[in-house]
Amino acid sequence: MESENVDHIGIVVENLENAINFYQEKFGMKVIDKEILEDRGLKVAFMIGKNGETALELLEPVNHEDLNNTIAKFLKNRGPGLHHIAIRVSNIEMSLKDLQNEGLTLIDKEPRKGARGHLVAFIHPKSSMGTLIELVQER
Amino acid sequence: MESENVDHIGIVVENLENAINFYQEKFGMKVIDKEILEDRGLKVAFMIGKNGETALELLEPVNHEDLNNTIAKFLKNRGPGLHHIAIRVSNIEMSLKDLQNEGLTLIDKEPRKGARGHLVAFIHPKSSMGTLIELVQER
Repeated sequence: MESENVDHIGIVVENLENAINFYQEKFGMKVIDKEILEDRGLKVAFMIGKNGETALELLEPVNHEDLNNTIAKFLKNRGPGLHHIAIRVSNIEMSLKDLQNEGLTLIDKEPRKGARGHLVAFIHPKSSMGTLIELVQER
Repeated sequence: MESENVDHIGIVVENLENAINFYQEKFGMKVIDKEILEDRGLKVAFMIGKNGETALELLEPVNHEDLNNTIAKFLKNRGPGLHHIAIRVSNIEMSLKDLQNEGLTLIDKEPRKGARGHLVAFIHPKSSMGTLIELVQER
């Protein structure tokens, strides 16, 4: 498969509004998208710099007590911080097929609708040297 | 201060050559820089995608047994994985001053020479919501 660019970096936060303010006030970044991902139980915001293309995706669980939610569990176990990187590809279905043929373990065998209406799929960190990698194909 | 873009994402790896091969073979990325940072005791490689601007910085300690080395310690305690994000700025000295005035804790009060000859400085994760943030000014 072929990677286009790093689409975003996922960062787990305790409180989305505080984190947005932090990156706005201290680092002069701006919000380009903010939404609730109902099916994943998450509130997310995407922020970029002045000449930014690669975004920070801030992630807060809607319900911090729901430990079936992987982000709530991450927050409880490890605290806030870096969570995943997302790589932009032009053809996510073909990329997933390639990675599976290469022996990587896919969390999502089929792409699903993620933030900003894009198609996304996650690769298991056990087959990518400890880093949780998301593939993103723009809608 | 003002952020330009995400310059790179730092990823700690067990073995630099294996990690380079992994991102080359599985994800079609290419190496744009590879060097040894003597003063930090690290071997590093920067890799980007086809239309990439934001890089992955793969980091391996030269001596895995030297636990005074923060990357060797990270590897021992947490295993390989995401380590830091680096934000590109146009004026690193002014940015550091701004962040200090805003009450953030700086690991490097003055910029120092980092990979690719760029000026770099790290912010302590305790004052940036659990994320280790590096500032980078291109030489």
